[in-house]
Amino acid sequence: MKITHYTALPTTTFSGEMVKNVTGCVAIGKADGAKNFCMRVFTIEPQGFTPRHSHGWEHEVFIYTGRGKVLCDGKWQEISKGYAVFIPPEKEHQFVNEGEEDLVFVCLIPAGVDEL
Amino acid sequence: MKITHYTALPTTTFSGEMVKNVTGCVAIGKADGAKNFCMRVFTIEPQGFTPRHSHGWEHEVFIYTGRGKVLCDGKWQEISKGYAVFIPPEKEHQFVNEGEEDLVFVCLIPAGVDEL
Repeated sequence: MKITHYTALPTTTFSGEMVKNVTGCVAIGKADGAKNFCMRVFTIEPQGFTPRHSHGWEHEVFIYTGRGKVLCDGKWQEISKGYAVFIPPEKEHQFVNEGEEDLVFVCLIPAGVDEL
Repeated sequence: MKITHYTALPTTTFSGEMVKNVTGCVAIGKADGAKNFCMRVFTIEPQGFTPRHSHGWEHEVFIYTGRGKVLCDGKWQEISKGYAVFIPPEKEHQFVNEGEEDLVFVCLIPAGVDEL
């Protein structure tokens, strides 16, 4: 068993031309004995964004706080807390914070790929 | 792709001697093309609780709103919004709402078992 608040976990900061104002942590993963899938929590600060990219695995996302937009299937759609987002494998996607508070979401991926 | 607010999804109500004031929905599952794991969202109203049970698959949980307690490994621990909870396979567990607002959490399970 593991019970922890996501803000108590060590974070990784992502920065570069493709990504801005994003930090992430592994909430539940291999090190906890989770063999099938992995939960990460990402925080995008205002005006930040994740990379626009695609890969061979899916994302199952749930928005915890904030608001923004997500690109998938070539379309931008608005998201805010309480939204679930499924991004199938190989679909190009990107998350952008368009609000004035942090956009925080959980993002789950299958086991066998890099956790963060 | 699927983008939906969890409150827009059809819900199932659970009631009986073992469970009280609990509704749940499948946010992302087989019907959406999710092949590896499934996201459900559960709402426990004040004074409600999920069954005290165990089974052969894990839960990866993230608390969206509210507060309560979770039993796992024979211990009760307090939870509130922003907590991640990993319940390994075969561990007896139960969630109880001890607050005055709904306790809402996402709960992910591997593919191959009943989604709800």
